[in-house]
Amino acid sequence: MPLPRQVFIAVIGAGGVGKAFLSQLSQVSSNLSRSTSAPTYVSLILLSTSKKSIYHADYKPLNNWHAELEASATPPLPLPELAEYLVKAPGKVVLVDNTSNQDVADAYPTFLKKGISIVTPNKKAFSGSYQLWRDIFSAAGNGSGVGGYVFHESSVGAGLPVISTLKELVETGDEVLKIEGVFSGTMSFLFNSFQPLGGGGGKFSAEVKTAKEKGYTEPDPRDDLNGLDVARKLTILARLAGLEVGSPTSFPVQSLIPKELESCSSGDEFLSKLPEFDGQMDELKAGAEKEGKVVRFVGSVDVPKGEVKVGLEKFDKSHPIAALKGSDNIIAFYTKRYGDNPLIIQGAGAGGEVTAMGVTGDLLKVLRLL
Amino acid sequence: MPLPRQVFIAVIGAGGVGKAFLSQLSQVSSNLSRSTSAPTYVSLILLSTSKKSIYHADYKPLNNWHAELEASATPPLPLPELAEYLVKAPGKVVLVDNTSNQDVADAYPTFLKKGISIVTPNKKAFSGSYQLWRDIFSAAGNGSGVGGYVFHESSVGAGLPVISTLKELVETGDEVLKIEGVFSGTMSFLFNSFQPLGGGGGKFSAEVKTAKEKGYTEPDPRDDLNGLDVARKLTILARLAGLEVGSPTSFPVQSLIPKELESCSSGDEFLSKLPEFDGQMDELKAGAEKEGKVVRFVGSVDVPKGEVKVGLEKFDKSHPIAALKGSDNIIAFYTKRYGDNPLIIQGAGAGGEVTAMGVTGDLLKVLRLL
Repeated sequence: MPLPRQVFIAVIGAGGVGKAFLSQLSQVSSNLSRSTSAPTYVSLILLSTSKKSIYHADYKPLNNWHAELEASATPPLPLPELAEYLVKAPGKVVLVDNTSNQDVADAYPTFLKKGISIVTPNKKAFSGSYQLWRDIFSAAGNGSGVGGYVFHESSVGAGLPVISTLKELVETGDEVLKIEGVFSGTMSFLFNSFQPLGGGGGKFSAEVKTAKEKGYTEPDPRDDLNGLDVARKLTILARLAGLEVGSPTSFPVQSLIPKELESCSSGDEFLSKLPEFDGQMDELKAGAEKEGKVVRFVGSVDVPKGEVKVGLEKFDKSHPIAALKGSDNIIAFYTKRYGDNPLIIQGAGAGGEVTAMGVTGDLLKVLRLL
Repeated sequence: MPLPRQVFIAVIGAGGVGKAFLSQLSQVSSNLSRSTSAPTYVSLILLSTSKKSIYHADYKPLNNWHAELEASATPPLPLPELAEYLVKAPGKVVLVDNTSNQDVADAYPTFLKKGISIVTPNKKAFSGSYQLWRDIFSAAGNGSGVGGYVFHESSVGAGLPVISTLKELVETGDEVLKIEGVFSGTMSFLFNSFQPLGGGGGKFSAEVKTAKEKGYTEPDPRDDLNGLDVARKLTILARLAGLEVGSPTSFPVQSLIPKELESCSSGDEFLSKLPEFDGQMDELKAGAEKEGKVVRFVGSVDVPKGEVKVGLEKFDKSHPIAALKGSDNIIAFYTKRYGDNPLIIQGAGAGGEVTAMGVTGDLLKVLRLL
């Protein structure tokens, strides 16, 4: 019977994903500690939001984080001090970054080099400069016993097994030819409503408003419509497939923000003027309809050609991308081994619970490897 | 810089999957040995078919297995002697069972207890008696440092990430409500041809003949039509979801072999008489067509009710199961977190290369954990 072991967890971010993760963590912890083979105790030793933080100098676990955070007046630790605090913990440490903060992402190489492992849904770490990507993965030991591990399943498709599947295709020697899909829950919802398979659908600007009201868009819908979120996900997948993509703006990305509205000073002004451009979108829809097709906002990577692109495309009504429902994502991997019919993964690609699930799943993987 | 490490691999089975695996292994090995972090050398030390085997008493690697196997006159080692040979190897050992042999499966607990890890697509190990399932997983240490690891992704859906996804849903605390899908490439091909979405399709017996000619069925197509292969896969998934399924015959499984033909003495006799029953299948098809549906051969697990079943069902033409192509598999996980729209995985679920990919992927996981 091996000795029980303790792993320390530090969490940054307590928004929708952060809270869902903390709840999954407490559930998972009790299973781990009851495990008959190699019981593991995970201790939450730090929790930080953008405004405050909780932690104890003696690494005493935060068993009641909710109340402690409420009561706390401690500001967040600056990143270098955070690293120092964690590296002195009396055991292995996993940093869970549930933010979408670029500064935290930029500090990953520092944490990893100190042997701290990282699990995160933070796209910015893997879709920014190619230099940061290289720094992260050269700092990560991933098994060498030197640097920490880094896992980021939820940075694309939330809890869907997209990144693990792509990595396995590559590592087992398959040749990935093309990756194609709908990578944004917002864009999925918008176009499934704007041009549903069965016909009908409202004006584009009205669908944007509905999506915002339902909470499917960012507070400012332009942050979805500019295509950058999808471009970041494509950057990650293309890099995993072996392409040295410089940044999410180094390939063609179609923005759905009309040129004339780029200068709007607020999201509200933008939304009030968007109906003026419904005619263009209606034309697009009618054109697709004439060919028996539907319009969808997709991203694709052509690996042999080294081409990445993001934007509107037309799909046959029998195509799996056309048949998507609600705000689901769909990701198709065309590979040498899979031949004509791609390996497809489909389902909710956004939301606190499913995003947190990808993070919790990654944490379990790290715990097994540590 | 950590020291390079050596892991010994023993392979049973050199059929379609076995040969594809050996080819992937040689590709993967050279990547592993070139890895800058923790280079790993994998040495093939034993290869065994049903008729002969190759291995060296001093564990010298088989660098040219093809020629050595050809030249060998050594019979396969009996399983207890195989275990003894492997346990004395000067390092960690992974046994790759690329057979569908029940005797090998029955010996897994013995291997695992001795610290030998197992990766395999062999369904019989996980879909036989519940006692064997329990023996395997209690012998496996899976991290405790005592028993070996056991991974079997390819036992359901070949290389598709079905088992890893289900395990992650369960381990991260999601509630799996229903698993449903097409789990057999043969059944997929048969019904996609018998009643294609666009209408048409041949007589059922003719489609069975075509499938056999194309190599999509077992040598005796009755081994597909009896539903047992699908029942085995459902047994595995139901058990992973927490149900104590006694055996693949302990729940309703619809056989497509007409009662009157159960006594046929050969596959050829069966095929010659099958056309007499085309009328029944045509009726079924017409009935579904009238409702705007198609007939498909599916398996499902209702987890809360503890119900598993395998057989023909009708699906709306807009259902993803109806839209399946070629010989693809589709697996839908309905869970609490994923809500109305299930997490779906789809693609080729049979074939040497993709099955071997699941095995190679599992091997890489074990190598990281060892």
